[in-house]
Parts: sequence; structure tokens; C-alpha cells
Amino acid sequence: MTGIKSSGSRKLMLFSGRAHPALAAEVAEQLGVELVPTKALDFANGEIYVRYQESVRGAHAFVLQSHTAPINQWIMEQLIMIDALKRASVKTITVIMPFYGYARQDKKHLGREPISARLIADLLKTAGADRLISVDLHTAQIQGFFDGPVDHLFALPLLADYVGAKVDRDKLTVVSPDAGRVRVADQWSDRLGAPLAIIHKRRDPNVANKVMSAEVVGDVKGRVCVLVDDMIDTGGTIVAAADALFEQGAEDVIVAATHGVLSGPAADRIKNSRASEFVFTDTLPTPGELSQEIDKVTTLSIAPLIARAIREVFDDGSVTSLFDERA
Amino acid sequence: MTGIKSSGSRKLMLFSGRAHPALAAEVAEQLGVELVPTKALDFANGEIYVRYQESVRGAHAFVLQSHTAPINQWIMEQLIMIDALKRASVKTITVIMPFYGYARQDKKHLGREPISARLIADLLKTAGADRLISVDLHTAQIQGFFDGPVDHLFALPLLADYVGAKVDRDKLTVVSPDAGRVRVADQWSDRLGAPLAIIHKRRDPNVANKVMSAEVVGDVKGRVCVLVDDMIDTGGTIVAAADALFEQGAEDVIVAATHGVLSGPAADRIKNSRASEFVFTDTLPTPGELSQEIDKVTTLSIAPLIARAIREVFDDGSVTSLFDERA
Amino acid sequence: MTGIKSSGSRKLMLFSGRAHPALAAEVAEQLGVELVPTKALDFANGEIYVRYQESVRGAHAFVLQSHTAPINQWIMEQLIMIDALKRASVKTITVIMPFYGYARQDKKHLGREPISARLIADLLKTAGADRLISVDLHTAQIQGFFDGPVDHLFALPLLADYVGAKVDRDKLTVVSPDAGRVRVADQWSDRLGAPLAIIHKRRDPNVANKVMSAEVVGDVKGRVCVLVDDMIDTGGTIVAAADALFEQGAEDVIVAATHGVLSGPAADRIKNSRASEFVFTDTLPTPGELSQEIDKVTTLSIAPLIARAIREVFDDGSVTSLFDERA
Amino acid sequence: MTGIKSSGSRKLMLFSGRAHPALAAEVAEQLGVELVPTKALDFANGEIYVRYQESVRGAHAFVLQSHTAPINQWIMEQLIMIDALKRASVKTITVIMPFYGYARQDKKHLGREPISARLIADLLKTAGADRLISVDLHTAQIQGFFDGPVDHLFALPLLADYVGAKVDRDKLTVVSPDAGRVRVADQWSDRLGAPLAIIHKRRDPNVANKVMSAEVVGDVKGRVCVLVDDMIDTGGTIVAAADALFEQGAEDVIVAATHGVLSGPAADRIKNSRASEFVFTDTLPTPGELSQEIDKVTTLSIAPLIARAIREVFDDGSVTSLFDERA
Amino acid sequence: MTGIKSSGSRKLMLFSGRAHPALAAEVAEQLGVELVPTKALDFANGEIYVRYQESVRGAHAFVLQSHTAPINQWIMEQLIMIDALKRASVKTITVIMPFYGYARQDKKHLGREPISARLIADLLKTAGADRLISVDLHTAQIQGFFDGPVDHLFALPLLADYVGAKVDRDKLTVVSPDAGRVRVADQWSDRLGAPLAIIHKRRDPNVANKVMSAEVVGDVKGRVCVLVDDMIDTGGTIVAAADALFEQGAEDVIVAATHGVLSGPAADRIKNSRASEFVFTDTLPTPGELSQEIDKVTTLSIAPLIARAIREVFDDGSVTSLFDERA
Amino acid sequence: MTGIKSSGSRKLMLFSGRAHPALAAEVAEQLGVELVPTKALDFANGEIYVRYQESVRGAHAFVLQSHTAPINQWIMEQLIMIDALKRASVKTITVIMPFYGYARQDKKHLGREPISARLIADLLKTAGADRLISVDLHTAQIQGFFDGPVDHLFALPLLADYVGAKVDRDKLTVVSPDAGRVRVADQWSDRLGAPLAIIHKRRDPNVANKVMSAEVVGDVKGRVCVLVDDMIDTGGTIVAAADALFEQGAEDVIVAATHGVLSGPAADRIKNSRASEFVFTDTLPTPGELSQEIDKVTTLSIAPLIARAIREVFDDGSVTSLFDERA
Repeated sequence: MTGIKSSGSRKLMLFSGRAHPALAAEVAEQLGVELVPTKALDFANGEIYVRYQESVRGAHAFVLQSHTAPINQWIMEQLIMIDALKRASVKTITVIMPFYGYARQDKKHLGREPISARLIADLLKTAGADRLISVDLHTAQIQGFFDGPVDHLFALPLLADYVGAKVDRDKLTVVSPDAGRVRVADQWSDRLGAPLAIIHKRRDPNVANKVMSAEVVGDVKGRVCVLVDDMIDTGGTIVAAADALFEQGAEDVIVAATHGVLSGPAADRIKNSRASEFVFTDTLPTPGELSQEIDKVTTLSIAPLIARAIREVFDDGSVTSLFDERA
Repeated sequence: MTGIKSSGSRKLMLFSGRAHPALAAEVAEQLGVELVPTKALDFANGEIYVRYQESVRGAHAFVLQSHTAPINQWIMEQLIMIDALKRASVKTITVIMPFYGYARQDKKHLGREPISARLIADLLKTAGADRLISVDLHTAQIQGFFDGPVDHLFALPLLADYVGAKVDRDKLTVVSPDAGRVRVADQWSDRLGAPLAIIHKRRDPNVANKVMSAEVVGDVKGRVCVLVDDMIDTGGTIVAAADALFEQGAEDVIVAATHGVLSGPAADRIKNSRASEFVFTDTLPTPGELSQEIDKVTTLSIAPLIARAIREVFDDGSVTSLFDERA
Repeated sequence: MTGIKSSGSRKLMLFSGRAHPALAAEVAEQLGVELVPTKALDFANGEIYVRYQESVRGAHAFVLQSHTAPINQWIMEQLIMIDALKRASVKTITVIMPFYGYARQDKKHLGREPISARLIADLLKTAGADRLISVDLHTAQIQGFFDGPVDHLFALPLLADYVGAKVDRDKLTVVSPDAGRVRVADQWSDRLGAPLAIIHKRRDPNVANKVMSAEVVGDVKGRVCVLVDDMIDTGGTIVAAADALFEQGAEDVIVAATHGVLSGPAADRIKNSRASEFVFTDTLPTPGELSQEIDKVTTLSIAPLIARAIREVFDDGSVTSLFDERA
Repeated sequence: MTGIKSSGSRKLMLFSGRAHPALAAEVAEQLGVELVPTKALDFANGEIYVRYQESVRGAHAFVLQSHTAPINQWIMEQLIMIDALKRASVKTITVIMPFYGYARQDKKHLGREPISARLIADLLKTAGADRLISVDLHTAQIQGFFDGPVDHLFALPLLADYVGAKVDRDKLTVVSPDAGRVRVADQWSDRLGAPLAIIHKRRDPNVANKVMSAEVVGDVKGRVCVLVDDMIDTGGTIVAAADALFEQGAEDVIVAATHGVLSGPAADRIKNSRASEFVFTDTLPTPGELSQEIDKVTTLSIAPLIARAIREVFDDGSVTSLFDERA
Repeated sequence: MTGIKSSGSRKLMLFSGRAHPALAAEVAEQLGVELVPTKALDFANGEIYVRYQESVRGAHAFVLQSHTAPINQWIMEQLIMIDALKRASVKTITVIMPFYGYARQDKKHLGREPISARLIADLLKTAGADRLISVDLHTAQIQGFFDGPVDHLFALPLLADYVGAKVDRDKLTVVSPDAGRVRVADQWSDRLGAPLAIIHKRRDPNVANKVMSAEVVGDVKGRVCVLVDDMIDTGGTIVAAADALFEQGAEDVIVAATHGVLSGPAADRIKNSRASEFVFTDTLPTPGELSQEIDKVTTLSIAPLIARAIREVFDDGSVTSLFDERA
Repeated sequence: MTGIKSSGSRKLMLFSGRAHPALAAEVAEQLGVELVPTKALDFANGEIYVRYQESVRGAHAFVLQSHTAPINQWIMEQLIMIDALKRASVKTITVIMPFYGYARQDKKHLGREPISARLIADLLKTAGADRLISVDLHTAQIQGFFDGPVDHLFALPLLADYVGAKVDRDKLTVVSPDAGRVRVADQWSDRLGAPLAIIHKRRDPNVANKVMSAEVVGDVKGRVCVLVDDMIDTGGTIVAAADALFEQGAEDVIVAATHGVLSGPAADRIKNSRASEFVFTDTLPTPGELSQEIDKVTTLSIAPLIARAIREVFDDGSVTSLFDERA
């Protein structure tokens, strides 16, 4: 037969944007690879320039970017990185976004709003992404926004095992800070065998959006409450929730969330809260002022989980098998 | 200038599949149109044949189908109807699916599952759909599964006003039958100014999927509980929830849900339940055996809402304005 | 150079829907593989649920489904199976549909009809199919409906060799049951070196669709006629054709078709027909009542042909080479 | 409300490539429009340049091109014309290709062949076509190759009424020149109430592609035979068929086909054939040497049919209604 | 005939992002419309939120955004605005980007670079853009990056007429600041009837990227030189070019460019340059420190040109006719 | 685990259209492969037929076609070849078009023109192309027209080294024949360390398109001028430019261009020109009448460059590394 034959081989290459170099370095170390040397800079008017400094042709590319502030810049950098990879003839492009930017805009709450979380998925696809890897999506339905495989990793075992090892299990109650997060609290409750409570905001039916009171539904008196959420942004809701628990007689409150967005007043609120501990993973970089608050803020490393997922994807293994009982 | 000019005009045409002719007739009546005469039949081997019996060229087509059993047949019929419209040169195709089939498979609960709700959106798009109209999606994120406009209608005002007018408001408590439906209950709670409770299934952390107990979180003793959900399928969860409420001293239980799927043992369960009333809309046809149970099952008509949405879409009006305070 | 290298390997996995387990089992056996364990069930309202019970990441997936009744359910199941494979990161998806559902709706016979055979191809593509394998398409043009490779297998050698071995070749005449099937009859005529006849329905030019008479064009007196078609559905046409042949003096009539759809009255018609034998392949399951009629109905196994095609596709061999002189 | 309102109006514009100016002029005249003035030329290396010489923004554009020799040039010109219209902001683009080029390559006859007829549909779509209008497709399945509406016009009434008015109906037999054209002959047979015959090429089963004999199936002795086809290309098959009919005692033979491709030796063959008349439409220009053969070659004008179809499409009327009983 | 008819009407609506409100206001005033009231804000973590405050269904939407710093934020805002419009059922979306961000990355200068200008076109398309309007693209080929109509406006008449009216035409020489801009200079030369010169950077062939000297090719002694470019970013090249012209004996130097990007050191360089005047349009906002330099910096309004283009697009008029002799 | 495993292997196959067999043969020889045996012919009406004569399943296909006259035929042939490969299950398709047809129509020069260069990219993509390889695109932006990787090869080193080795470097001046080609001349200037001049056509500002004079900008007296361009088509511009240089006292003129299109009067113009030598590569076949003009026309082989690019692409090597300092 006509032609040239060669045996095939496969090559994994790991790329990182500039948003969260510490996480990229840790993932690379866990995987045992170097990050691909990349020239990335901003031109004077803010346009981003990217170039890879070694051949990437034929590689299975994994492109890590943390969607932290300035978030639009980092998303655009990731899109540009993907475009450059596509045009440089890589074989597949897997986008790693430990925190999925714009995930909270996952539906129209009102008419004439965007669904920005779907838009992000479409932009990534258009740029050239073949697969997404993300951690604890704001809602699991976001998997369905991408037209292709999404490997959805869970930080729950990491966070819950940490909390579970610290507290007296018999006193533990899992608390959802609002009606939208009860599912997450339910999973914690299952894993730790603890009862559940929720904070419910009663609104005045006669006045639009006016909250009358934050009711604690369930029993928290004398309990050690772990308030769980997928992300803490400005911290307003969670800190108010902690206050409400203390008011109802909670003995202690621990806050646990996968993504420490921690924008604006979050640092001050955390410092001033009566909650004894805040536990996050490092899917996003911790703001400088908080990284010193070692007594109160605990950051668990997400890198081993991401590195194992990359390896399974590359080796055609099972990402499902990474997790205890669910995927 | 070269060419022929004519003044434009626009034409609305309403089409219906064979799944739920009563609803189609009512929507047509509300709109003041005839349904387009359509030949639709099953060939001996089950393949569906569809043909429109008058010219549809240039029309704005609205294609109504209820995703009731046999659900796969009716979905396929709707796809075939859309294909025929596309090939017959209609201008736009708006799909009306009062109940969105496969909406519950809106994420991967486990690895290697489909996301069938996204698949349905993609199949409709591929066949030629430009816009979707649906009522009370299982999760609002499903709007983001379709690459185009989705007009999401709400039956909440219809259902809540009915229930609110019947019961003593001071005794009313809104109850979510599980952790995943708390958001809906929260909306009812807002509208009716009533407190909230939830049913929480405790699972044994040492045994996968083993439910230890169904806890009622919140206070229901002596209360009239309205158990709310988007759909009732076999009725198992909701009837068990009603039992749990009675056990905790509830004075009465009313069940309210937009979509009465009512499959398999639902009819028997409803008949035998201690709950005093079950309220649905007619997005799906009521099974024959239940349509006689006039004392216990109340069906509210969704046709006026759908007809007004069609009219607003055709007139480029605002669907958002159809609703009180949200869209 | 940066990165991790590994040698590539390729993995074939065979999946089957629930429509025709006997065929799937036989194909698996011919290939020497196990079917991938799959959980598939219908929810109470008819929605289908599918999950694969081992990791499929990186596999070349072959998804077999027989488009038999209830045909819309089995097509939807195949679409859902494909969606689940796409989202589970398989490398390629090859759809095997031995009988291509809706193949008869391959053109608009009248205005405002669908072209459902094209729609099926588009739905499969949208769900994630990369390649189709099918047997004896109703018209070969259907290959062109799919935007990708279609491996079109032929059962002609199987059927013709069976018939050719049984009858006196000198007495054999190949007969097309109507004007649309002459091409198939022509191929039989070539292969068996036999003369051709056709049944021609004369219509009354003054009355729409009124058939005046079924003329036999060509000479059949004293001949053993093999009436050939791609499929027998209700059997009405073919049984009437057989009658016409006997009326014209045929000595015997044998019916041969690739796909035994055999809907509705087919079983009775076959039993009562004067034709001495009906020969099919098992691309579709034989209805229970007929599988006992061993004297008159012969079913040839299509599994070896499908298994060899899968193997060639996986091994990058030539499917063309599977056939004597054509592909 | 914010914004500017204006009443809509619609504009039809007719464009023509350079392949068959006589047909374009006639269609324009029938429609009562001028062709849009267009600069079209070939650069020295054969690249085509096109520019429209008046504004086309917002128009419903109809782009007529005849796929005659040099066929690849004229197809490319049509693609370029469409691209220019798309980029000039027309509202819709309807492609008129009276003869669909490459229609005969509508399936893979052998492995590793293209399906060029599907490719043509895809190229037109990619360039920007929204709708196709064509006359007597080689096979009706080609409608399904285009992802959008196809208005399929029929020349049968034109041709059959012409032939039917000339001959003694009682002596008329309709003849298909091979197995693949029996469907067309069947439609003629229906319309004219005449019996059917076919020419069948017997091949030697032991020698690939060796034709043993051209059998006439059916009775033609003393009959006036009308040999019908969708197109006559080199004329080899049809002239041989006419000879076979005369050998079997036919009294006369008339050849009728929609598309007079008439390549290479066709002119000589027609001149030398014993058939008394050849009837075509002018979907393709008649080669110069034949346009003088007034005695033997009759060309019927297709322009009225095309003009009426354009008008119906623009007015959102029914193209189906153009035809007697079928569409 | 079945259905509801209404006469069509068309509605133009103008939307603006937050990047350059002064330009949006001026365009709106020129058009005689109000901007659609829009809620747009940044969440604490930088995610953008947009909502339109009146119904937009059925409108022809024009979405203006100036791609100024922080450029990635404003591009993302425009994408989100488009997504919200698409999901709110507008009829068409025309993107107005007076300066096309990332236009300079319009090709791969080196391997493994992105082509970000194409990426921008694709992202806009994916979000839902139907048409682009832009002014003086960095290279005209960028029109071809968008799969749809692009209305490319020219500021040349505005700028050249201003300069031509100020200087002694007999002393005028048009100068290109480098090899890549000679085409623009050539157009100025044509319009003003002036001779041409170019600045040519000689590089050392033995040392990569080392510029040996900036040669002035052409005669500039005693001439009034107008240095022309599409954009001035940091001003380094243009100010050095002006210096080289003075060194070669130029009497005066005027700098004219469509887009005053004016990043980083641009303000200081302009202040310190010997060039007597810098002329820009206001496609981008002028940095605060320069808007006071009234003696040296002249800003011409681009709003009338954009407003007329919008009007022509909406009225299906000719944008080509906006310009003197070219489009 | 279920399934069949095999080790992967990769296969390169080289295909050629009929446009320029000499180049294909040379590339094949350089690569050390046979061209895949291919049946390609024109039917009587000009339709092209292609079939590959051995199995290609799973191959990495490289499809070489030279876009020479009759250019539309050869482009269509390449599209058809790609379609056949896609449907025959090759793994990837790389299109090699040493000269990119229609590259000069890379933008709208006037309103209502096509952008045919983008159209070509889209047609290739639609047919099934995954990657393009081309030499010296008319403008580098054309890379961005294709939605995928483009390997852009440069003939500059080949041509410049040949010219540089022949002439006295101290006397050499690089000349651009018009404003649009200055970038190419600039690259030559860099590589050979020579000064630059350009030919500038002054137009009369009062009369559209009237060229008043062809000015030589820069000093050419007594110099050996190398006039550089990407392509020479009819030769009109380049020969006039040479004349202008001689008029300004040039000692000698050499013309160098990558693509010798050489249409129409080019041969005569070259023969009659005072320029001493014309240097081309063989991306296009040299017209017969010129191939004998050995004294004046030099053709350098592009095959080694193409062969090395194919090899790098297949081996996942770096095409960038093929070139000295740029890619």
C-alpha cells in the first residue's frame, strides 16, 4: 500500500495563563511536567499578546486559567491562548477553569438578561476548546452549556474531610445560607451524617424584594454549624448567616466554600465575623491581605485533584473513579 | 432601481401535534385562530407521517406539542413537524412545549450519563426551531441549553392565587418535598407571605443511598401545608412527604404542581393519600382514571397564558410584561 | 521538549440499545468482545435513562440499535446513548443502524412534507455521531444525507446466493414489485444471470391515484419468480404482486428482502400467500408469531457482515473489500 | 418606547450569471423586472470577478445560473455571486439552478467516491444560499441534500402535454431507457394513460460489467414509443435504446427529456438517429450546431414555470399550487 | 386561509456599552433617537451584568462599543450585550465597533501566535452578531474575518479635507511612517494630489531585528509633510518619523490618524514632539491629559458618519453611497 | 475491561489533482512516497469524477492541487477530492495549495464585491479540509480566513538567496512595483541588506482612476534593481515598472516573484522586456511557450520546501523551524 507509516505517540503539554501562577506551578509539579514556556504580555492599550516558545504541534494541550479579577482580561487571555493553540495544530484542547467565571449568570432571572455562563461555554468552543475541566460548578446544569465533555471535579471530600476531622461530629449541623444552596448542604449532610438547617429569607409579599427577616429553619441551638457554599464573594450573605446562627444559640460557626472569590469588603467582613474559621480551596488566588490571616482562614490545595484529572484524561482513564461514590 | 417592491405583511399560524388536542384547541380558541389542518398518522411500523394541508410559506409558525406519554413518539413528531415547516419555507419556527420532556436529565448525576435536556434543545435547533416557549422548566438553567430565545412562562401566579384564595393564610406553611425544590417553595413563600419548611432525607453515611429518615425541617404542627413542586410523576415522593407532614401534626396538606405527569401508580397514590387536594395545570393531559376524581384533583387551564405569550411574540410585545414582578 | 509522552493505543467498544438484543449478542460474539455493560431503563413517563457501567474514555465506540417498533423510542434511545458517549470523552462514535428508520421518507412526494430520512441523519450528527454503518438503504442517496462517512453494506450476496442455490437457475426470473425497485431487481438479475420482469401499476389518468390494473411487464409464464425488495412492511404490495405473477402463469414465487419489517397484517398475509418462501435477514427482530413459521420464512444472519465491517473500520481496513465487486 | 419605527417593505431582485443569458432574459421578461446590472468578467488567469452595480441591501435576491459547460466555471461564478450578495446585506438568497450540476453523482456507486451532488448543496449553503429552486432533479432525494427549503419544479406537464398532443394516444407506449429511470416513465404512463416498457441491460454474471444484451421488457411492436429521461448527455444510451425499440418493431420513437445536456457526440448521434423527434426544455442552452436542426429537435421554454415559481416564493404563495396534482 | 395577518413594521433601537458614552450620545443625537435605557454594572469580582429596561423584541438592534482601555472588559461587555439581545428575540444585531480591537493581530507574524482579530470576529458571531460596522480597519482584509456583511466606513475624507484646507497644497507631501502603511498614504496622495514619501527602517541582515537606520525614501526638504496612519498607539514610531522628516529638512509635520489610541507615553510624546499638529477622530475617547492640549491636538467627530451608516443600514439604503468614490 | 485494544499507527498518504503533475511527482519523490493511484476524469459535460484506487481509511491525507488555469476546474476538483476523502474515513485532510487561488480578492475594494479568498477558505472547510499549506499568500491576513491551522511557507529565502548570489550586493536596490507590495520589498531589503525604492502611481485627484505618472520614489540611478512581487500575472505592471526604473537610470533590472501565473500577454511581455532575468518558483506550471526561454526565465523548485512541511506536519514537528528567522 502507498504511503508512509509510523507508530503513533501521544504528548501531554500543560499551559498556563497569567492569572494564578502559584496554582499552575503546583499542578505542573504534581504532574511532573514543566509548563510550556509562553510569552504573554499586555500591549500599551491593554490588548494581550501570547506566543508559545516551543513547538506544540500534535500535543494534547491543557490550558489552565483561574477566573479571578480582572476576570474579563483573564478570560480573554484564555480565549487567545486557545486560538493560538488551534492554529498551531495541537490535537486536542482541554480548558481548565477551576472556578468557572460568570457561573452565577446561569439563567435569566429577569427578562432581557444574558445567560453569560452559556456565553462563556460558547466562546470557549468557538475559540477551539474540545473539553472543559472545572471544580464545583455553581449549578451542575452548566455542564450542559458546553457542547462536549465536561469533567466536573468535586472539592467536597477535601473540604468535608477537613471539617469533619476537626469538630465533634455529634454537635455538627450543616447549614445552607439560602434556599439555592440546600443541595450542597444536603451532600455535606450525607457525607458527615449530620442534620441540616437552612437560613430562609422571608420577603414582604406587599413590597418587592423587601426582606422581612432571616429565619433559621431547623435546630441550631448549642450546635457547631458548618455553613457551606460553593463560593464566597463579598461575604455579605455568609457573614449575616453566621450572625443569625449565633443569635439562635449556635455554639460555633465554621464557613466552608470551594471558591474564595473574596472581592471588595470580603476581607474585612471575614476578619470581623464571629465565625471561628473560613475554609477554602485555592481555585482562586487568595487576596494578599487575607493570606496573612493564618488563624482564621484555611486554604486547602486543589492542585492534586486537578493534576490527577489531567492525568486520567490524558491516559483515557476514568475521572469518575477519582471520587468516592459520585461523579 | 431594478426589482419588484411590495409591502410586507406578517402571518401567524398555529400547528399542533397529536399529543394533547384539547390543549391545542383551547389555545387556538383563546388566540382566535384555527389550527392549521394537518394530516398526521403512524405507518404500520410506527414511523410518523406529517403533511400540512394548506400553504405555510412565509408564516411565523408556532408548533405546540405536549411531551406526554408515549413521550418519545411525541417528541419525534414535533421534530418531524419542524422539519416539514423548515422545508416549506416558513419564516420562523417557535416551538411550544408546555412541559419540557427529559428536563430532569439536566446534568450528569453520575459519570457516563447523558444530559438529555440539552440533547432535546439541540435536536429542536437542528430540526429548525428558532425559539422555544415552555412553562416552569424543571431548572431555569435549561433556558441556557437552547441557542436562541426561550420564553419561560410561570404558572406560579395561577397556582398560588388558587391555593391562597382557598386556605386560611395565617395557618399556611409552604413545604418543599426535598432539597432540590427549595427554590420553588421559596417563591411560593414570598408570594403568599407564608413560612417555609422542607423535607430532608437523611442518608446513612456508611451505606450508599440508604435513607435513614425523612426529617421535617421547620415547624408544621397544626399548619395547613402546601407541598409544592414543578411536577408530580409517580407521586411517590410527594405522597410520602404528605405522610411525614401529617405525622408531624400538620392539620391539612394540599399538593400543588405545574405539571401533572402522573405516571404509573400516581392515580392510586393520589386516591389513597391523606392530602386533601392536588392542584395541577393542564400542560399535560390528565390520565383518564383521574379526570373523574373531581373532588380531589383540580386542573387549572394553562391555555390563556400560552395564548397571550404567542400573541406577544408575534406582535413583538413583551412576554416579561405578562407576569407580575418577574420573568 | 516540555511535556509527557506516551505511546498511543486504540480501543474498540461495542454498545447496544435494547431494541434487538439477539442481533447485538451475535455481533459481539462474531467480533469476540463483550457488549459494554449498560444500564438502560424507561422512567414511568417513558423518558429513557442510560448509563454505561465502565469507563469509555478514549474508546472508538460502535453503537448498535435496530430501528424496529416502537421505532421512535429506539431512535431516541440511540440518540441518548450517543449523547452520553460524547460527554464521556470517547474518541469516535460509529452508529450502526442495520435498518435505517424513516428511510422511505427520503424526499418530498408532495409539498409541505418532511424529509425525515435527512432529519434522522442530522439528529444523529447533532447528538455526536461521526460515522454511520447501515445495510441496504432504501435509496443509496441517503448516504448523502449524512455529513460524514457512511459504510453501506449489502445483503444482496447473502440473499441471492441463498436463493440461487435453491432454485433451477434456468427457470428463474427476477421481478420488481413496482417501478421504484427496478434497480434492486436489476442487481439480482446481474448476479444470477436471470431475466427481469416488473409489476407496473397503471393508474387512471382521469382519476387521481386510482389504479386501473397491475400489469406484469415481461414474461413470467412457467417461471420461478423471485420477487425482490429492500423491505417488506405490511406485505400488501408484495403479496398482491405474487398473486399477479401466479395469475400470469408463474410456476412458483419466492420473496426476498433484506429488512423484514413485517408490521400489522404482514404475518397473516405471509401465512396466506401462495408464495412458497419468504427470505429475510435479521436486521430487524422477527415478530413472535412468524418466528414459528419455519416452513415458509427463512431468516439469514446479518451479524457476520456487520462484525466484519466494524473490524475493518476499527483496523482502518477497507470495507469496500468486504464485497465482491461493488461498494 | 425608544427607537425609530418604519413600515416594512419587500424587494425582489433578479440576478443572472453569464452561463445562459437567453434564459435569464426570458425569466426577467416573464416576471416583468430588469436583471440587476452586474459587472462580471474573467481575469487573465481565469479568476472570476463580480460586482453589482446598484444597491442590493435588504433585497430578496434570486440568483439564476445554468450549470452548462464549462460547468465548474459557472458553478464557481454562482458561488461568488452569492458571497457578494451575502456581504452586501441582502435579506435572503434563493439559488435558481434549472439543471442541478453534478446531480448524477448523488451516491457512492463504489467505495472512495465523492457524493458531489451533496457537496454542491453544501457549497451553496456555505456561500450563503437560503433556498434552492431547480427543475426535475436527477433523483428527488437530492432535495434532502440541502439544509433548507428546495422548490422542486416539474417539466413533466410541459413535455408530456406536448408529446400527448402530437401522437395517436392509442398507439403510445412509454419506455424507460434503463432500470434507473422507470419512475419517470411511470409518471408519464400515469399522465398519458399509456402502457410501459423498459430497456433492460443483461450483464454477464461471470464477467464484470459485460453487457450481454439489451432486452426490451414489455410490448413495443407497432407502437409509437416515447423514450423518456431527465437528461440526455452524450446521447449514447438513448440512441441505442431507440435502435432496440425499432428492432423490436416499434413504429416510431420520440425522445423527451427535461435537460438537453447534449455534450460531445450528442449532436451527431441525434442527427443520425432513426428517432423522429427529440424534445427538450431550455434549462440548458442548446449547442449551436443543434439549434439549427429545427425539424428534429424541439425546445420548449421553461422560463414561464421558473418565473411563476419566483413570484410565488416572493409573495409567500404556494409553489405546490403551480402543478396539477403533485409537488 | 388559516392564521392571523398583520402588517409588518420595523424598529431601530440603539444600544451603547459603557466605554465611550460621549460618542454614543452624539450618535444618538445625530440619529434622533434615545439610547435604550440599560442597566450595566460590574459585580464585586469584575463580572459584568447587563439588562435592558424596555422591551426589545423584534427590534433591529445596533450595539455601539468603543474598544478602548480596559479593552478586554469592554469587548466582553459588548459580547454580553449581544447575548442578552439574542435571547430577548431581537430581529437583527449590528455591532458597531468604531475602532476594531485586536486589529493589529490580523495574521501570524511568527509561529504559535493567535490571530486575535479573527477570534474577535468569531466571538461576536457566536454571541449573535449579524453585521459589523467599523471605521478604517487596520487592514481591509479583516472584513473577510467576519462571516457576514461588514460595513467599512472611511474617515479619510474627513481627515484629508481638514488637512487639505489648512496647508499650502503645493508644499504638501504625504508620508507613510513605515512599509506597512504605504497604502493609506497612497490614498491620501490620490485625494490631495500630493507626492509621496516613506520612512523605511533598514535592518542589519546579520543581527535579527536590529534597525540600522530610518531612511526617508522620497523628497521632503522644504515640504509640509502629513504623516498618516490608521492609529497612533504609544506614539513612538510616529514621533520618531516626524523627527526623521525634520532632520531631512521638512518645513513642518502634521500627523493625521483615524484612531487616537494614545496609550502610555503617548501624551508626553505628543506634547514634546516638533510636529505642529495631531489630528484624530473620536472613535476612541481622548485621554484626559490630552483633551486640554487644544493647540496641538484636533479631534474631529466621527458620529455623523456612523449615524448616517446606521440609518442607511436600517433603511436598506446604500452605505457605499456615503462615500465619494470608493467603498 | 470490555473491548478490543490495538496499538495505534499513523499513515501519511499523498494525493494530487491533475493540475500540475510535475510538481506532485517531485514532492512525492522528495518525500519518498508514491502518489495514491487515483482515477480522475471529466465527463462529457465537464463534471469531474474522482475515485481513489486503494483504501485510504484512517490515513492522514495530503491533497496537492495547483490553482492554475483553468483555475475554477482545478479548485472544484480539489473540493471533490476532499469530499471523497472525508466520506472514505480518512483521519485528517491537509490541503496543499502552493498558490492560493483568488487570493487577490481578499477584501472588498468597492461595495457589493465578494471576498472570494474567504469564500475559498470556507468552501475547503465545508468540503472537509482540516489544515491548509500554502506558499507566500498574497496577504498574510488570508491565514485568518481559514478556521483552523494554516502552515504558511515562504519562498523568500529561496528566491533572495538565488538573486543575492548572482548580483553585486553593493549595487543592489530592492524595488516594490507599487504601494501594496512594499512589505515584501521590505523583507527582501532586510535579508539582503539593500536599500529600498518604490514605484508610486500618482493619480489625478480630479479624474477618477486616471494615473498621471509613475514616480520612482527612492534612488535607482546606476543600481541593479530587483523588482519583487508575490506573483506575476499578465506582467503589465511589472514590465512597466522595469521600464520606469530603466528610465530613471537603473543599470539592470531583475524580476523575482514566487508565483509565475503568467497569463495572457505575459509571455510576450517577458520576452520583450529590458529586464535581464525573471525568477519564479514552480508553484504553478510554466506556460509551454516560456519554458523554452531558458536564458531569461529561471524556475526554482518549491518541492523540497513543500515536502519538508508535509513531513513536519505528519511527524508533529515544527514547521516554524523550517525557516531562518520567521514563520
